[in-house]
Amino acid sequence: MPDQPDAVYARKLQEVLGGQYDEITVAMQYGFQAWNIHIPGKYKDLLYGIAAEEFGHVEMLAKMIAQLLEKSPMGITDKDVQSDPAVAAIIGGTDVQHAIVAGAGARPVDSMGNPWSGSYVTASGNLLADFMSNANAEMQGRLQVARLYHMTDDHGVRDMLSFLLARDTMHQNQWIAAARELQAENAESLPVPSNFPQSKEHTPVSYQYIIFSDGAAAAEGTWAKGEAPDGKGEFTYLSAPDTSAPMPAPTHPDSRLFGTTELPNIVEKTASAVQDKLHKE
Amino acid sequence: MPDQPDAVYARKLQEVLGGQYDEITVAMQYGFQAWNIHIPGKYKDLLYGIAAEEFGHVEMLAKMIAQLLEKSPMGITDKDVQSDPAVAAIIGGTDVQHAIVAGAGARPVDSMGNPWSGSYVTASGNLLADFMSNANAEMQGRLQVARLYHMTDDHGVRDMLSFLLARDTMHQNQWIAAARELQAENAESLPVPSNFPQSKEHTPVSYQYIIFSDGAAAAEGTWAKGEAPDGKGEFTYLSAPDTSAPMPAPTHPDSRLFGTTELPNIVEKTASAVQDKLHKE
Amino acid sequence: MPDQPDAVYARKLQEVLGGQYDEITVAMQYGFQAWNIHIPGKYKDLLYGIAAEEFGHVEMLAKMIAQLLEKSPMGITDKDVQSDPAVAAIIGGTDVQHAIVAGAGARPVDSMGNPWSGSYVTASGNLLADFMSNANAEMQGRLQVARLYHMTDDHGVRDMLSFLLARDTMHQNQWIAAARELQAENAESLPVPSNFPQSKEHTPVSYQYIIFSDGAAAAEGTWAKGEAPDGKGEFTYLSAPDTSAPMPAPTHPDSRLFGTTELPNIVEKTASAVQDKLHKE
Amino acid sequence: MPDQPDAVYARKLQEVLGGQYDEITVAMQYGFQAWNIHIPGKYKDLLYGIAAEEFGHVEMLAKMIAQLLEKSPMGITDKDVQSDPAVAAIIGGTDVQHAIVAGAGARPVDSMGNPWSGSYVTASGNLLADFMSNANAEMQGRLQVARLYHMTDDHGVRDMLSFLLARDTMHQNQWIAAARELQAENAESLPVPSNFPQSKEHTPVSYQYIIFSDGAAAAEGTWAKGEAPDGKGEFTYLSAPDTSAPMPAPTHPDSRLFGTTELPNIVEKTASAVQDKLHKE
Amino acid sequence: MPDQPDAVYARKLQEVLGGQYDEITVAMQYGFQAWNIHIPGKYKDLLYGIAAEEFGHVEMLAKMIAQLLEKSPMGITDKDVQSDPAVAAIIGGTDVQHAIVAGAGARPVDSMGNPWSGSYVTASGNLLADFMSNANAEMQGRLQVARLYHMTDDHGVRDMLSFLLARDTMHQNQWIAAARELQAENAESLPVPSNFPQSKEHTPVSYQYIIFSDGAAAAEGTWAKGEAPDGKGEFTYLSAPDTSAPMPAPTHPDSRLFGTTELPNIVEKTASAVQDKLHKE
Amino acid sequence: MPDQPDAVYARKLQEVLGGQYDEITVAMQYGFQAWNIHIPGKYKDLLYGIAAEEFGHVEMLAKMIAQLLEKSPMGITDKDVQSDPAVAAIIGGTDVQHAIVAGAGARPVDSMGNPWSGSYVTASGNLLADFMSNANAEMQGRLQVARLYHMTDDHGVRDMLSFLLARDTMHQNQWIAAARELQAENAESLPVPSNFPQSKEHTPVSYQYIIFSDGAAAAEGTWAKGEAPDGKGEFTYLSAPDTSAPMPAPTHPDSRLFGTTELPNIVEKTASAVQDKLHKE
Repeated sequence: MPDQPDAVYARKLQEVLGGQYDEITVAMQYGFQAWNIHIPGKYKDLLYGIAAEEFGHVEMLAKMIAQLLEKSPMGITDKDVQSDPAVAAIIGGTDVQHAIVAGAGARPVDSMGNPWSGSYVTASGNLLADFMSNANAEMQGRLQVARLYHMTDDHGVRDMLSFLLARDTMHQNQWIAAARELQAENAESLPVPSNFPQSKEHTPVSYQYIIFSDGAAAAEGTWAKGEAPDGKGEFTYLSAPDTSAPMPAPTHPDSRLFGTTELPNIVEKTASAVQDKLHKE
Repeated sequence: MPDQPDAVYARKLQEVLGGQYDEITVAMQYGFQAWNIHIPGKYKDLLYGIAAEEFGHVEMLAKMIAQLLEKSPMGITDKDVQSDPAVAAIIGGTDVQHAIVAGAGARPVDSMGNPWSGSYVTASGNLLADFMSNANAEMQGRLQVARLYHMTDDHGVRDMLSFLLARDTMHQNQWIAAARELQAENAESLPVPSNFPQSKEHTPVSYQYIIFSDGAAAAEGTWAKGEAPDGKGEFTYLSAPDTSAPMPAPTHPDSRLFGTTELPNIVEKTASAVQDKLHKE
Repeated sequence: MPDQPDAVYARKLQEVLGGQYDEITVAMQYGFQAWNIHIPGKYKDLLYGIAAEEFGHVEMLAKMIAQLLEKSPMGITDKDVQSDPAVAAIIGGTDVQHAIVAGAGARPVDSMGNPWSGSYVTASGNLLADFMSNANAEMQGRLQVARLYHMTDDHGVRDMLSFLLARDTMHQNQWIAAARELQAENAESLPVPSNFPQSKEHTPVSYQYIIFSDGAAAAEGTWAKGEAPDGKGEFTYLSAPDTSAPMPAPTHPDSRLFGTTELPNIVEKTASAVQDKLHKE
Repeated sequence: MPDQPDAVYARKLQEVLGGQYDEITVAMQYGFQAWNIHIPGKYKDLLYGIAAEEFGHVEMLAKMIAQLLEKSPMGITDKDVQSDPAVAAIIGGTDVQHAIVAGAGARPVDSMGNPWSGSYVTASGNLLADFMSNANAEMQGRLQVARLYHMTDDHGVRDMLSFLLARDTMHQNQWIAAARELQAENAESLPVPSNFPQSKEHTPVSYQYIIFSDGAAAAEGTWAKGEAPDGKGEFTYLSAPDTSAPMPAPTHPDSRLFGTTELPNIVEKTASAVQDKLHKE
Repeated sequence: MPDQPDAVYARKLQEVLGGQYDEITVAMQYGFQAWNIHIPGKYKDLLYGIAAEEFGHVEMLAKMIAQLLEKSPMGITDKDVQSDPAVAAIIGGTDVQHAIVAGAGARPVDSMGNPWSGSYVTASGNLLADFMSNANAEMQGRLQVARLYHMTDDHGVRDMLSFLLARDTMHQNQWIAAARELQAENAESLPVPSNFPQSKEHTPVSYQYIIFSDGAAAAEGTWAKGEAPDGKGEFTYLSAPDTSAPMPAPTHPDSRLFGTTELPNIVEKTASAVQDKLHKE
Repeated sequence: MPDQPDAVYARKLQEVLGGQYDEITVAMQYGFQAWNIHIPGKYKDLLYGIAAEEFGHVEMLAKMIAQLLEKSPMGITDKDVQSDPAVAAIIGGTDVQHAIVAGAGARPVDSMGNPWSGSYVTASGNLLADFMSNANAEMQGRLQVARLYHMTDDHGVRDMLSFLLARDTMHQNQWIAAARELQAENAESLPVPSNFPQSKEHTPVSYQYIIFSDGAAAAEGTWAKGEAPDGKGEFTYLSAPDTSAPMPAPTHPDSRLFGTTELPNIVEKTASAVQDKLHKE
C-alpha cells in the first residue's frame, strides 16, 4: 500500500490499468485468444493461465489507485487547501472524474481519461501473429511501468511496480519463447501467414528494399542486403521506386448520388454559350 | 483496376485501408516514430522511407474501393433491382455510408464502419519495442490481406492484393531484421527497456512460470524451463500461485463524496435503535 | 454447442457479449465496484462473487460465437456459394471482421461492430446508486437475451440462452434485494445521496411536478400527487413553468480569443462611415 | 450567475453537462423513449415533459460554463500571469479546448474532454426497464451534482446546483413512482421482461445464489434466502458452482482463414521427421 | 407516415438522424453557438430559432424510423421468413440493434451503427467561421437527404424528405446570407479571424500558390492568379516549394524515459570492442 | 525550433496536430477528396497538391512538439522539482501520455488527449459541398492557431505559427476561389446538390423564415426578406410555425420484442379484475 495519498500519481497509474497496452488489454487479449483457439494443449493452457494472472494485476492496480485517492485533496472546498498553490497545482494534475464520477475510486480509463476500448484487443486465430502481438504488448507495457517507476518516491507504489516489472520480464520472455516454439514445431513460420501460397504473391518485390524518401543511410542496414530473416529470400536494393502504376480513370457513379462530374457541365456550358451567342445577335 | 464493380467487396477492403492494423495505421505509425526519433541515420531513414511507401498504399486502396463502387447497385430505387433477391442480398452487405455519405467513394473507416482512430498508432521512443510493434502490425496486416485474397475472384483486385502481400513479406522481414540489428549493436536488448536496472525489479519472479489456471499442459513449453530468450535468467516453474497478497483495508474517502461507508450507518443505526426504544417506552 | 453454424446469429450474439449492457460490462462493473468499495463484508463479497460468475458468462458466449462461426460461409470465394442468393444473403448479415480480423473467432464488440467501451461501466462508490445501476443493467440485458431467444431455432443456442435468462432473473432479484437491504439498514436511502443536507437543495421544487410540454395526461400519474417514494415529501402539481430565469448578459471574453463581439464592430463601422464620407467629399 | 470566473470549475461542471449521466444524456434518453413509445397517455406525456425540462437544464449549464470562463486566465501570454504559480496552477486544471477550440464557451464533452456519445442513451421500448434506467441516471446525476456542490464556494454556482439537486430529487422520486405504477397496473413486472414465458428459462438456477469467489459473508444477505423481490421464487443457496460445463472441442474453421490448427502441423512434422531420417541414412 | 415497413431503409435513415452532418448535429451545434454567443440581437435569435426547428426534425425522423420498423421482419424465428431469401436479404441490411437493443425503435446512431458524438459539433465563438460551418453542415446534410430520396419509392417517406430538402434549401441560403451580413457589417471578414494582426503572419506566403505535387493543371485556377477573395492580396504562383526548412537535431529526452538514443550505444559498443580485443589477445 | 522546452504548450499544440480541424484532418480530407474525385484536371491537381503540403505541416508540428518536450520536467521524481509549486503547476497542465506512452514524443491526439478520428474527414463527392467544408476547416484551423499564438512568447514557436497562419490565409482564400469557380463554370450551384430537381422538394417552405423561438430580432436579418443567395427564390417571413403535423399512432411491434404496449395490459388487467371479483365472491 502507498506511503501516502497522491491523486496526481493515481491518474498516471490509470495508464497501466486502462490504457492501450496494459493490464485490462492483456487480460482480455489473452482471454479472447484462449476462447478462440483452434488447438488444445500447451498453447491454450498458457493463454488461459496468463489471462488469469493479468486479471489479478487489474485488481492490484485498481486497489492501489483507490488507496492513492483515499485522503488526497481533490478540489473540495476548504479555504486552507484552496489558497495553497502547491495543493492547487496537485489538483491541476488529477483526473477530475476520480472525484466527481467515482467518488475516489479507480476507473476503466487511461491517464488522459479515454475509456478503455475493445479495439485494443488483438486475437486473429493465427498464433505466431498473436504471440508477436503479445510480446509487443508486454514490451510497451514494461516500458510504461519503468517510466512510472521514476515518477514517484513512494515505497509502496514502487514495490508494486517492481513486482509488475518482474512479471513483464517473464511475460516478454515467455511469448518470445512461445513464438520460437511454434516455429520450431513448424506450426507456423515467417512471413505470417506462412501457409499462404508464395506463388500467389508478386514475388519480384517480396524482398526488395525500395527507397521512397531522401534518407540514403537506410541502405546500410541488414534489411537491404543478405538473407532475409524468414530464410526464404535474399534482400535486394532499389534506390528509387521504378514502377509508375498507371492511373485509373476517375469514376462516374450513378448521377443520383449528385457527385460533381465533368459531363453535365460541358453540356450545360455549351448550351449556355449558344444561348449567349443567340442573345447577342 | 477491378474486372467489375462489387460494393460488398469494397466494404471488406475498407478493413485494410482504415482498420486497426492497416495502411493508414502503418503510414501514421512509421511517421510518428520517424518524427519522434532520438537518433539520426539508418533507422530514421528506414522509418521515413517505409512511411512514404505506406501512404502510397493508402492511395492505392482508396482508389480501388472507388472503382469497385462505381457502377454497383447501392440500394437506389429501381424496380428490377429491388425485386431481385440476389441484388438485394448484395445491398445487404454493403457499407451504406459509401453511397449516402461518400457518393461512391472510399472512407477512412474499417469494414464495420468504425472510423480510423489515432489510438491505433504506437510510437514509444524505444526502438526495439516499436520495431516489434511494427512487425506485429505487418503480420496482422498480411494475414488480413491473405484472407481477403480468397474472398474475391476478381483479377484486378487479386493483382493488387498480390502486390501488397509481397510488400508485407518484405516489411515483416525488414522490421525483424531491424530489431535484430538493434540488439546486435547493443542499442537495446530484451527485456525492453533493457537499461532499466534489474536490481529494481522483484527478481524472484522475473523468470518464474506460475500456473494460475487448470491447464497443466503449459508446463511442457520451453517457457517453463531452460534459459530465457533474453539470456539473463533461467525459467523456473511453480504449479500454483503461492503468494497471497495481504488485502488492504477498504478506503474511506472524504465524506463529501457521498460514498457508502460503514461508519455513518453504524452511528445512524444506533441512534435509530435508541430512538425506537424510546418511542416504544 | 449449436446444432449448426450460423454466422448471422453469431453477429447478433455479439450484442450480449460486447454491447453496452452485457456480460463484459457487468463483469467489469461489478469488479470495479468491488475494488473501490469502502466497506468489508456481505456487499463486497456479493460484488466479487457475481463479477466472477459474469466473467464465466463472457467465456461461455465467446466460445458459442466461435462455434457458430466454425463452418459458416463467410464470403470466401466459391462458385456454388456465390451463386446462391440465400447464402449471399447470409453473408450480407455477418460481422465481416469475424472472418477478416478474427479468423472465425469472437471479438470484444457489439452486434454493429462497435468496440466495447470502458464508458459502459458505472462504479460511483455510492452503493444504492450502483445497485440500481446493476439492476438496470440486468434488466436491459435480460430483455436483449429474451429477444435473441426468438431469433433462432437452434437447440444448443437456446439452451445457453435459457440458462442466461435464469441467471439474469436471479441477478435482477438479487440487486433489488441488496438495494432494499441497504435501505433497511439505513446505509443509504432515497433520494441518492441521502446524506446530502436537504437544507442545501432548493426545496420548493423538490417534489413539484411541472408540465413542460403539451401532454396533460401526465397529471394523472402517481408522480403528480400523494406521498413521494422517498417518504420525505408530497408531490405537487404545476400546470406550466412559472419561473422565467433572468437571462445573463452575453459574455465578452479576452479579445485574443477572436470571438465575434459587438464592440469592435461599432467602432470600426463608425470609422468606416466617416472615411466614406470624407472620400465622397 | 457566478460571483467570479473560475475556469477550473467550468471544466468540472462539464461533467454534468456532457458526461455519461447528465443533462444531455437524460434529455436525449427521455426524448428517444418518448419518440419510440408504444402507448399513448400519461407515460408518453411524462417522458415528453421531462425531456423538455432537461433540455432547459442543458442550456442553464452551458451558459453558466460560459460565464465562468468569461474573464478567466486561460494561458494567454501575460508576464504577470505566467510568473504567478497560483495562476499557473489554475491553468493546469482547465479544459484547454475551452480556450483554443470554443473561445471561452461550453462544449458537448465531459470533465476529461471526452465528447458526449450516443451510446449513453438507453431506450429499449420496455418501460419498466427504461424507467429503472432513468432512476439510475438521476441517482448517478444527483450524486455528481452533490459532489460538485462542495467543490466551490461561489454563491451563483451553488444556487444553480441547489436548484438542480431539487429537480433531481423530484425526478428520482418520479421515475420510481412511475415504475411502481407500471407494476401496479400489471403493465410489466419483475423480472423484466415479465412476459417472457418462465417455462423457457432454465428455472433450477433462477433463484439460486451460487458462491463463485472466496467471500462467505455474501451468504448473510437477503439475496441468499427468503422470497425473491419478484414474488415468483424462493432464494436458495449454493456454496460453490457444481456444474462443470463440458468444454466444446476447439473449432477448425476454413483453412483459408490461415488460423493455427494442429492438423497441418502433425502432417508436416511427420513428413519432416521422415525426411530427417532419410537424410541421415 | 410510410406506406409500409422497411427495416433496411430505417437503417439508412439513421444517417440523417444520428450521423455526422445531420439533425442531432445541427440542433446541438446551433444550440451551443447560441448559448456561447457574445452578442445579443438578430444572430442570437436566429441561432435559437433554427436550433429549435432542428430539434423538431430530430423527432420527425425518430418517429418515421419507428414506423418503418413497426411490422418489419427483423430476424425473428419463423420458418416461412427464414426460408425466403428475399426476406433474409432484407434482414442482412438492417441495423440489428434496432431489434435487439431498441425493440423496433430509433437510436442516436448513424447508418453504420456508430453512436452520435459530441465531436461533430462546431461552436468557436467566431460567428463567420461558425456560419460557414453551418452552411457546410446544411450542404452535406441536403446532399445526403437527396441521395436517400432515390433509395425509396415510399410516398410517406418521400413526402417527409421533400419537406426536409426544402428546409435545407432555406437553411443553406440563410447561413450564407448571415455570413454575408456579418461581413457587410464589418463584424468579421476573410481571412478568419480577420482581427488577427496581418503583421504577425509570415506574409510572403499568404497568397502564394505553391505546387507540392505533380499535377500542373492546378495552375489554371483562379486561386493561382488575380485578386484573392479576401480583397487583401494578389495570388502568386510558385511551381515548386523552394524553402527547404533546416531539420532540427533529434531530441534527447531524460534517460529515465528509456528511449533509444545513440549516446549510450556508442559508449557501450566501444567498451565491447575493447573487451573483444582484449579477449582475443 | 523553440527557445526553450514547454511541456504545457506542447500539449496545447496537439490541438492543431491531432484535433478535429487541423493538420491531420485537412491532409486526410484533401487526400480522400482527391482519391474519390470524378473529374480530372485542375480541381484534382489542387486537392493533391494541398494534401501534400498539409502532410508537411503534420511533420512540422510533430517535430516542434518533440522539441518542446525534450528537456521539460514531466513529473519525473526529483526533490528540487517536486518541491517547487511552479514546476508542479506546469506538470499539472501536461499531457501525461507524452511522457508515459510516447517518451517525450508527439502523438496523434488533440489537446485533451482524444485520439484523432476518421470521422473528422469530409469527402462527399460533391465538390461545392466539399470545398465549403474545406473553407470551414481552414477557418476553424486558423482561428485556433491565432489563439495559440497569444499563449506563448517563444520566438521559435511563434515563427512556426506565423508561417502556418499565412498558409491558412492562402488556403481559406483558395477554397473560396475554387468554390466560386465551380459555380462560375456551372459545375454546381446553390443549394447543394443543385441538380436535385426542385420539383421534388416541398417548395412552399423552401425560402420561408419561420420563427420557432421567442427572439424576434431575427426578423431583421437579410435572411428574412429579399432575394435568397442562390438566386432561385425570395425569402418570406412567418412569425410562428403554422403547421401542426398530425401525430402518427404509436407503433406496436412484434410482441416477441417485449416492449410495453397497452393491449396485453388491458387484457391482463381485465382478467385480473375478473379473478379478483371471483376470489372475493
